[in-house]
Amino acid sequence: MSKVAIVMGSNSDMPVMQDAIDILNGFDIEIEVDIVSAHRTPEKLFDFSMNAHKRGISVIIAGAGGAAHLPGMVASMSPLPVIGVPVKSSNSIDGWDSVLSILQMPGGVPVATVALNGAKNAGILAAQIIGATDKCVLDKIITYKEGLKLKVEEAAKSLKS
Amino acid sequence: MSKVAIVMGSNSDMPVMQDAIDILNGFDIEIEVDIVSAHRTPEKLFDFSMNAHKRGISVIIAGAGGAAHLPGMVASMSPLPVIGVPVKSSNSIDGWDSVLSILQMPGGVPVATVALNGAKNAGILAAQIIGATDKCVLDKIITYKEGLKLKVEEAAKSLKS
Amino acid sequence: MSKVAIVMGSNSDMPVMQDAIDILNGFDIEIEVDIVSAHRTPEKLFDFSMNAHKRGISVIIAGAGGAAHLPGMVASMSPLPVIGVPVKSSNSIDGWDSVLSILQMPGGVPVATVALNGAKNAGILAAQIIGATDKCVLDKIITYKEGLKLKVEEAAKSLKS
Amino acid sequence: MSKVAIVMGSNSDMPVMQDAIDILNGFDIEIEVDIVSAHRTPEKLFDFSMNAHKRGISVIIAGAGGAAHLPGMVASMSPLPVIGVPVKSSNSIDGWDSVLSILQMPGGVPVATVALNGAKNAGILAAQIIGATDKCVLDKIITYKEGLKLKVEEAAKSLKS
Amino acid sequence: MSKVAIVMGSNSDMPVMQDAIDILNGFDIEIEVDIVSAHRTPEKLFDFSMNAHKRGISVIIAGAGGAAHLPGMVASMSPLPVIGVPVKSSNSIDGWDSVLSILQMPGGVPVATVALNGAKNAGILAAQIIGATDKCVLDKIITYKEGLKLKVEEAAKSLKS
Amino acid sequence: MSKVAIVMGSNSDMPVMQDAIDILNGFDIEIEVDIVSAHRTPEKLFDFSMNAHKRGISVIIAGAGGAAHLPGMVASMSPLPVIGVPVKSSNSIDGWDSVLSILQMPGGVPVATVALNGAKNAGILAAQIIGATDKCVLDKIITYKEGLKLKVEEAAKSLKS
Amino acid sequence: MSKVAIVMGSNSDMPVMQDAIDILNGFDIEIEVDIVSAHRTPEKLFDFSMNAHKRGISVIIAGAGGAAHLPGMVASMSPLPVIGVPVKSSNSIDGWDSVLSILQMPGGVPVATVALNGAKNAGILAAQIIGATDKCVLDKIITYKEGLKLKVEEAAKSLKS
Amino acid sequence: MSKVAIVMGSNSDMPVMQDAIDILNGFDIEIEVDIVSAHRTPEKLFDFSMNAHKRGISVIIAGAGGAAHLPGMVASMSPLPVIGVPVKSSNSIDGWDSVLSILQMPGGVPVATVALNGAKNAGILAAQIIGATDKCVLDKIITYKEGLKLKVEEAAKSLKS
Repeated sequence: MSKVAIVMGSNSDMPVMQDAIDILNGFDIEIEVDIVSAHRTPEKLFDFSMNAHKRGISVIIAGAGGAAHLPGMVASMSPLPVIGVPVKSSNSIDGWDSVLSILQMPGGVPVATVALNGAKNAGILAAQIIGATDKCVLDKIITYKEGLKLKVEEAAKSLKS
Repeated sequence: MSKVAIVMGSNSDMPVMQDAIDILNGFDIEIEVDIVSAHRTPEKLFDFSMNAHKRGISVIIAGAGGAAHLPGMVASMSPLPVIGVPVKSSNSIDGWDSVLSILQMPGGVPVATVALNGAKNAGILAAQIIGATDKCVLDKIITYKEGLKLKVEEAAKSLKS
Repeated sequence: MSKVAIVMGSNSDMPVMQDAIDILNGFDIEIEVDIVSAHRTPEKLFDFSMNAHKRGISVIIAGAGGAAHLPGMVASMSPLPVIGVPVKSSNSIDGWDSVLSILQMPGGVPVATVALNGAKNAGILAAQIIGATDKCVLDKIITYKEGLKLKVEEAAKSLKS
Repeated sequence: MSKVAIVMGSNSDMPVMQDAIDILNGFDIEIEVDIVSAHRTPEKLFDFSMNAHKRGISVIIAGAGGAAHLPGMVASMSPLPVIGVPVKSSNSIDGWDSVLSILQMPGGVPVATVALNGAKNAGILAAQIIGATDKCVLDKIITYKEGLKLKVEEAAKSLKS
Repeated sequence: MSKVAIVMGSNSDMPVMQDAIDILNGFDIEIEVDIVSAHRTPEKLFDFSMNAHKRGISVIIAGAGGAAHLPGMVASMSPLPVIGVPVKSSNSIDGWDSVLSILQMPGGVPVATVALNGAKNAGILAAQIIGATDKCVLDKIITYKEGLKLKVEEAAKSLKS
Repeated sequence: MSKVAIVMGSNSDMPVMQDAIDILNGFDIEIEVDIVSAHRTPEKLFDFSMNAHKRGISVIIAGAGGAAHLPGMVASMSPLPVIGVPVKSSNSIDGWDSVLSILQMPGGVPVATVALNGAKNAGILAAQIIGATDKCVLDKIITYKEGLKLKVEEAAKSLKS
Repeated sequence: MSKVAIVMGSNSDMPVMQDAIDILNGFDIEIEVDIVSAHRTPEKLFDFSMNAHKRGISVIIAGAGGAAHLPGMVASMSPLPVIGVPVKSSNSIDGWDSVLSILQMPGGVPVATVALNGAKNAGILAAQIIGATDKCVLDKIITYKEGLKLKVEEAAKSLKS
Repeated sequence: MSKVAIVMGSNSDMPVMQDAIDILNGFDIEIEVDIVSAHRTPEKLFDFSMNAHKRGISVIIAGAGGAAHLPGMVASMSPLPVIGVPVKSSNSIDGWDSVLSILQMPGGVPVATVALNGAKNAGILAAQIIGATDKCVLDKIITYKEGLKLKVEEAAKSLKS
């Protein structure tokens, strides 16, 4: 069965990255969560990236802030699809640093970048990637999107009442 | 078998989007290519987005420039993973408009955004998404990455000779 | 009689959009208010945009944040003038995302964009559009502008006293 | 009958502003064109802005570059809807200066801003404003939008042939 | 004797502009302070700008926020040197709007722009402009600069003690 | 008689700075021109800045690109009004570097900043500073502004003929 | 023995710059700390920069905010490596001003720039510069980096427990 | 004897990086040059970074464009001072991506960043780092800076003749 790995550069990224965990739990997709710092634990980065696809991981979500190298470095070593979450850290220049250092990867090494602090969408995208070939997960996503619509409709109703 | 749909907002996006076509052809992944304008053919947009997953498409690549709504609108209607390619169009404000209007999607509706004009990476990412559950495609990606390494090594050698 | 429709992507946009409601109420222009999410209720978006001009709406005000596709998508389907209000949402990159994804529309599909969080001006602009061919509303705008002048003059006086 | 005034800060803005002229000519909407510089002919600016609505003008299109004050100053003095076209002039800082100095108007004085160099859309928007209460012009806009769709469909067809 | 006029677009600019008043009071330079809104009191703007040099004003300081047209419009009508103070107003896009709409004036109509919220420096600059031909004011500026140096030296000393 | 000093960081700034020279020649204001590099000739910078006001200079125009320290450093040492011209140099990040490093001076040390590459306006501003207390120069500026108006009026006429 | 000088433009920079002091104390590297303002104490700036290398200083760390000229001016006069710390001051435009006015130095006069408010990294970099030729300091850095790794590993462990 | 390693992510960076080679050749400092791609040759990156300090390298210069991870990743694994050169690559968003992904390193892992395309300054900085403890190299830098001054003085002279 497909499994999603969620890694982040520091435990200070956890409040943002928790949204990805919650979404994937909601879809009953198995996850593993770890802290892997591109800049402080480079050997672990290597080990994680080189081997994730060998032990049942299908998709990797990587979140980091500032000059955020974790998603791109994981993507450079793993053949799996890597989803990057730019985290707006404390000394960030308005988040531009993490957005650009994750998004602007060179030809050959893509990172599927989501919005600033968009860990929830990273979780949904991971589910969609699994759903691309797994009918059961695809159906859950269709149901999830129905739910989004219902919430908007209820909000619209309450506006008029 | 998995199939990738490549759509773009205008035929002026083709010079950029061709890179995605070439990459996926190189991976022997079946593609279909179409022009779907969020702003000029909204019914076609609806029809395409609502039905892509019903006729064998697994991944959608959508490229657009300026206030680029195509990738996000496709993502709002399709349960499939949608890869967005920000295209730097002629009156763009340095590309920031297309990057931000594709990347900054609200919670619930992700678009997997790649670099400005990064259609090549969109193609590779689509292959990786299929490879997440298709061992044969995964192996092609591993081989492709080996090829990237060899090219750098050759360039390094020629530097020293 | 002319009527203005005010739509927004989420009820979280209401604190900003209320200014448009207040202004138009002040001008005694009939309004309808609804929540229409481009990304969560695409069918409603279609239905609303395709039919607004058929049921007495003359101007549409659409507010949204982040990758803000609502104003542009409404404009793609309605022949009416559409005023876009960029809303600075919580995970926005300083508002640039909503500004650029509303302003930078491609040739053929204009959105009349106002300032970030400028719903008050959207309301005035809607009144001016009606006033362009309705002498009675035009006179109200002239009176409104006189009022702006008086307030500045009073502030200037209190400075000197 | 409704008439649209098109003003610009300098004759160097004409290559951009010509698109508005062409569109409105195509809609058979009467126009007048003039050069009015906020910074070099302030009396003319006053005279034009104060009186436009008294001589049959319904909508004003104003284009300017750099620290672009023309659209906002016209809007400060005229009760008519004013459409602002940010022009990317030669010493512009990538167009940001004209975009922000037209878009970010204070509460009370809206300018309907279109994209950088978006004079074509300014013309269409002017027509839509007239069409808001003129059924005949509204129909022309509906036909125009049909034409946009056909062009995209032809481009899509030629892609497949 | 030389006199400096300090004008601002709104009384909400006063907390920032107060610094200019204080500095000029400290230099014993006569000032007058007024609220002149380019967008809400255009006739007053005209009257003020056209006549300032006729009633003993030598330098004008103008502060405004957002799409800040006051300094540039004053400069378009007055032959006097105009100092512009970009004010960071509440819905500003990080201050960029006021900075660029004051700084990027077209050839022929300069505004002497100071830093965002830099009213203190506007006051000093006004004094320097008077001092350019008034030996007594020049000496006060030399003394003022000595004072700046002393404060830094004291701070440096306290660091070491 | 008043004299204006024009300094620049490098002879590569001359094509931009020439506009200031031409304007001041046109106003018959005496100038001196020199190359003073803040980063390459710091002693000359000191000597120039400390003594300019002692040998008849009334206003200083300083132009520089990139991390442009010349205008601010001259202003730190001279009691005279210093006009800064941000020059867009070859490796500039779109001119933002020179604009911000000249404009954003700390409290106490103003630089009168003009637009990017705005040497022409620097020249006019220098004349206005002298004109603030010199009736003869003031009259020349009034005449100059009349000339600007005439050129716009002629352009407007040729548009209509 | 090698010694590092830490200078800053104002004592308001001390809360940020303290991190550099702490790191260098932790490495047992001798430091001196002073306030040297490029704009308020230019003679001290000259004296400090011209002589630092003559009295045993090996590396200079300079921190400043806004139009931050201190690091670049020190670098223009000293042959020593100068590390620049952009400080986000109160009226800064999001820190861009200090970043660009330190980073974008012209050819011939480098400043080793670290992240916004990155004084800690400035301290480490100073130690690395000394360690480049001092085996004992190099070993301390290797040990320091080991410590970084251990902290991440502990955080990762606590995540799993 | 000290040795500087110059690495770059791609041979397309060579035209920019050549300036560092030329400067260091001019200072008679031994160099080695190689292509090491963070994203395409991660094992080589590891090997290079882990061992550079063990084979006589004192300083590392690393240049890369786009989402530029090479300088930061080398710095994460090497105890040596690492100088980062942001290269403006073809699909760069005006260079902001490489600047921010090199500059904004997290606490603990500094990269000494120079200006966009500033390889010349990277070379000088490397020499200054060696000169920090090598009197002979320090003297060469003092001589080099004298040369800079002479060139400016000659340019100033030719201006006046």
